Amino acid sequence: MTVPPIDPPPRLLMGPGPINADPRVLRAMSAPLVGQFDPVMTTYMNQVMELYRGVFRTTNEHTLLVDGTARAGIEAALVSLVEPGDRVLVPVFGRFGHLLTEIAERCGAEVHTIEVPWGEVFTPEQVEAAVVAVRPALVAVVQGDTSTTMCQPLADLGEICRRHDVLLYCDATASLGGNAFETDGWGIDLVTAGLQKCLGGPSGSAPTTISPRALAVIDARRHVEAGIRDSVDVAREGSGTPIRSNYLDLAQIMDYWGPRRLNHHTEATSMLYAAHECARLLVEEGLDEAVARHDLHGRAMLAGVQGLGLRVFGDVAHKMTNVVAVEIPAGVDGDGVRTRLLEDHDIEIGTSFGPLHGRVWRIGTMGFNARRAPVLTTLAALEQVLRGAGAEVTAGGGVGAALEVYA
Amino acid sequence: MTVPPIDPPPRLLMGPGPINADPRVLRAMSAPLVGQFDPVMTTYMNQVMELYRGVFRTTNEHTLLVDGTARAGIEAALVSLVEPGDRVLVPVFGRFGHLLTEIAERCGAEVHTIEVPWGEVFTPEQVEAAVVAVRPALVAVVQGDTSTTMCQPLADLGEICRRHDVLLYCDATASLGGNAFETDGWGIDLVTAGLQKCLGGPSGSAPTTISPRALAVIDARRHVEAGIRDSVDVAREGSGTPIRSNYLDLAQIMDYWGPRRLNHHTEATSMLYAAHECARLLVEEGLDEAVARHDLHGRAMLAGVQGLGLRVFGDVAHKMTNVVAVEIPAGVDGDGVRTRLLEDHDIEIGTSFGPLHGRVWRIGTMGFNARRAPVLTTLAALEQVLRGAGAEVTAGGGVGAALEVYA
Repeated sequence: MTVPPIDPPPRLLMGPGPINADPRVLRAMSAPLVGQFDPVMTTYMNQVMELYRGVFRTTNEHTLLVDGTARAGIEAALVSLVEPGDRVLVPVFGRFGHLLTEIAERCGAEVHTIEVPWGEVFTPEQVEAAVVAVRPALVAVVQGDTSTTMCQPLADLGEICRRHDVLLYCDATASLGGNAFETDGWGIDLVTAGLQKCLGGPSGSAPTTISPRALAVIDARRHVEAGIRDSVDVAREGSGTPIRSNYLDLAQIMDYWGPRRLNHHTEATSMLYAAHECARLLVEEGLDEAVARHDLHGRAMLAGVQGLGLRVFGDVAHKMTNVVAVEIPAGVDGDGVRTRLLEDHDIEIGTSFGPLHGRVWRIGTMGFNARRAPVLTTLAALEQVLRGAGAEVTAGGGVGAALEVYA
Repeated sequence: MTVPPIDPPPRLLMGPGPINADPRVLRAMSAPLVGQFDPVMTTYMNQVMELYRGVFRTTNEHTLLVDGTARAGIEAALVSLVEPGDRVLVPVFGRFGHLLTEIAERCGAEVHTIEVPWGEVFTPEQVEAAVVAVRPALVAVVQGDTSTTMCQPLADLGEICRRHDVLLYCDATASLGGNAFETDGWGIDLVTAGLQKCLGGPSGSAPTTISPRALAVIDARRHVEAGIRDSVDVAREGSGTPIRSNYLDLAQIMDYWGPRRLNHHTEATSMLYAAHECARLLVEEGLDEAVARHDLHGRAMLAGVQGLGLRVFGDVAHKMTNVVAVEIPAGVDGDGVRTRLLEDHDIEIGTSFGPLHGRVWRIGTMGFNARRAPVLTTLAALEQVLRGAGAEVTAGGGVGAALEVYA
């Protein structure tokens, strides 16, 4: 068998993520490796911690990377926080709420869910009523669920959880960097994310921040592996149920990132370089500025698809800035349109899950692609492909409406 | 805060890994991303499966990547195979045997260990006696344990395990690609590895191969998450204990890599590019040729350190090709020597764990660094630094002895 080197085509990735990584992030990954405990490496790790404190808007000391995709970050959070038998409340407003439920169940939690129809979000009162009824140890919620494009308001949820002495975990994978997020300001105890959405990097690293409240819970379950345990570790051993995972054990991961540099996994150096550059670019731009950029280009894309005569799914007032769900016009083959966009224009837009499968396309404007050219080019190509598919579209209506937003 | 872009120094990484990635692997990671289900991406995934069948020497259909470091691969194997309460036998001959024990315990296993002193390996008779005594569901063993540099012979273990109807899992992270490994020929049911040793890549992806015997066990525990489950999945639901992890659930990961392409994590595209290029280069070179190369440069390094007048730790007849443990001479500050090598020569060699901490250095010759120049340069620099540290060394003895091996 002879396999040629990879040679990917220059796709414009306008789906719900992954999107094109910033070329500076890709270049950072081709930098030479250094050793795991090289002072250069530990300096980069400390810089990553500081940079992601900026991204998460937090002073949490324990702000670090979990080596895996965003889903690894979610599971690290839940397996580290949830003791078997704990009650966990998951407000589900799309596919990724189901994922939190699934993962929490595998951690041994007794999971309670509340649901709203896809395309809606929860009011604080709905969440508080469920907290009162369920009395969970933890509320686990997604901020932006790309399956519906909805962005759950979180500002009140932290306060509700503190008042009822409940921990609050948030999966901010799809939203962080492109929608306002205030870890400390909103009182969120543990947050995880990924690089492949608004952060403009590849999938494979999960930025994570752990508050002192979450730390106390995790510390009580601390258990250092036998191969490297010393007297200090025996003294620190927690009284809680040991964490069921070794790889995703945040107590051990914190010790590896902390001053003791206790050996755990071998840090994925190239992914750390990528995560470093993603955050560096975002902090350099300014978080407020990055959110405003996503808001601008998201509004341009929204106006553009409406200007083409397409309908938008869901409660637009609670839409994430960085993705829009567009209803597939009656009689149009949704997958056929996606294929023509990919094959004729090198442009990818997204399909959907569950109840929205075959009903909507999802179009993203995030990270490196939250720029004018990707928005206008996607609208121009979409107009042509839709016309070819027999849909009624307003000639020039997409690009024209987007340009009005930019004017 | 202003953090500059990363700009790592050109280290020569001659420790037990991670080592320098092949520049072609680093360049592959800077290629542009494509979408998760783009036909280009799924073609790359299929190529990765085929390439790693070559690397693992197997016809196993389910040969794929776990998105995380080598440790993620280990945990995926154990959490997917081991049901809580299962007996697992771990022959421990170094630190990574303890790690298997630790992870299996967190999976709920009843773990039994046998141990040999660090620097030795097990005979087949020792393992078989323990299998008979313990009657485990699974034997979990490391092939090459870098903590001691020993390479456990495996050729007989597969046969023993089949005869006693026990599954055999092997962690080949440190050895694969540089030491003979025959997944099918030796009858090993599940094998995991990492890129950062003999495969010449960065840490962050765990090549994994799953035999039909292991598949049967995992299939019986199959459980597709609620958010994406359909009638086909309900029909395939296994009767065994559900796998405790979602992220590391090999049943779901196989469905993502298989023809159904069932959504699970978002594949870490850049790490997949790296893994693709690592295997491609190895298959192009030939596995036998790569093992012979590691053997040659490992023998040159061994002869070199002995030629300098240093003593080697452990049973050299069972040493891995790709790493040697060198006793720190009496009166020499081991960490001081490592610092001088790093600061004056940009060369990293390894320290040690547990009972060998402060007693030996570990010097690797693997992957991209299993070449003549890194071996000779390391020996030349080591001679100078040792002399500076007050050790008695034979002038020219290291490079001279290595050159004799090459002659």
